[in-house]
Amino acid sequence: MTSVAVGALPEMGFSDVKSKKFNGKRILFQGDSITDAGRNKELSDANTTSALGAGYVALTAANLLSNTPERGYEVFNKGISGHKVFQLIDRWQADTFDMKPDLVSILIGVNDFWHTLSHGYTGTPEVYRDDFRKLLDSTKEKLPNATLIIGEPFIAKGGTAITDAWYPAFSKYQEISKEMAKEYNTAFVPFQAYFDEALTKAPASYWCPDGVHPSLAGSALMSAAWLETFKKV
Amino acid sequence: MTSVAVGALPEMGFSDVKSKKFNGKRILFQGDSITDAGRNKELSDANTTSALGAGYVALTAANLLSNTPERGYEVFNKGISGHKVFQLIDRWQADTFDMKPDLVSILIGVNDFWHTLSHGYTGTPEVYRDDFRKLLDSTKEKLPNATLIIGEPFIAKGGTAITDAWYPAFSKYQEISKEMAKEYNTAFVPFQAYFDEALTKAPASYWCPDGVHPSLAGSALMSAAWLETFKKV
Repeated sequence: MTSVAVGALPEMGFSDVKSKKFNGKRILFQGDSITDAGRNKELSDANTTSALGAGYVALTAANLLSNTPERGYEVFNKGISGHKVFQLIDRWQADTFDMKPDLVSILIGVNDFWHTLSHGYTGTPEVYRDDFRKLLDSTKEKLPNATLIIGEPFIAKGGTAITDAWYPAFSKYQEISKEMAKEYNTAFVPFQAYFDEALTKAPASYWCPDGVHPSLAGSALMSAAWLETFKKV
Repeated sequence: MTSVAVGALPEMGFSDVKSKKFNGKRILFQGDSITDAGRNKELSDANTTSALGAGYVALTAANLLSNTPERGYEVFNKGISGHKVFQLIDRWQADTFDMKPDLVSILIGVNDFWHTLSHGYTGTPEVYRDDFRKLLDSTKEKLPNATLIIGEPFIAKGGTAITDAWYPAFSKYQEISKEMAKEYNTAFVPFQAYFDEALTKAPASYWCPDGVHPSLAGSALMSAAWLETFKKV
């Protein structure tokens, strides 16, 4: 064996990823392709890389699990590529309530706008708001003790899929996500501000090449943003 | 857009992952299955999750890329599952020299011992040392300006593949890896000490279920250990 002595556990990632009050175990991430991140949907294990995908969820789990082993967190990912908020409603019983999570993190909305440009979807910001309320009403009812985190949908200016059509139309969806967080008294991850700041350091091709799906660097940025919010819940 | 103001970039992961002197761009990870971590070997892109696998390399790249975008790092993974040090020699020209890395990180040795138990391999610690010297001699000759990091092969006590046969035989391989780091004046990552300390917090099933291949939590632990060493080079 090595003779190198390590007294206390060395810096194992984030200096502090402990949440303020949250003392549950089961953390569920919900959303679209950004959350999905190529996860193996045949698997429903907690804490394994293939079940968590290759995005911000796995990076976040890596940090939580390595830094706070004493918490015994079970991290799950049920994001599904392409989904809009109404599709979360359709699968919320099986993919959220039945899993009995102590914390639910929801990032949804980019497709609610994007698919009006690219898939002939006819939903409006009002539909997004109404559906989001339905989702949150049922969540508050069925999981009254769960901690909720809403992530702001975001885009990276300069990304290949981001045309002028996104401005200012998409900002309405971002405002609604924030409005929902206030209305339902949930935590909120201001992803757009993180990406805007990051884009002053490197271009969209570095953080989020198509402007919607983050690179590994962008996923790490998201994970850091999410953990900053987590520390406050 | 959100009205949340973020002045300076928020804490984006490790508080400080800047290396002391290293100012190259191209970082190459070499090794066996622990480094490989299921990477897509059809791809040779830098910085993409599928090319980097789902282990400590991707987690390390995520941290480096998100925290120091100004450095323009290009992170590559050429680890191959099952490999022993002599197999690195066989592919060193194509997989290392031809890639012109500015930094080469090598983690090799667990199979040099394990395969004597399970695959009828007849190599000894002396073979491991001799082969490691050949590898490092040629690396010093062909890449005289590259920064080198040697990772200590490690095992997690209590892992399902770790029998009594590993003790104390495997420690000889660990000592040789450290000896190589001294002899060739390279940096060294004392992975065993990190795992030993982590095992006081949670069992092998949490960090490294079979004792050889780390979980996501164990991969994050490795990444933290590697970055601690990186900060010093």
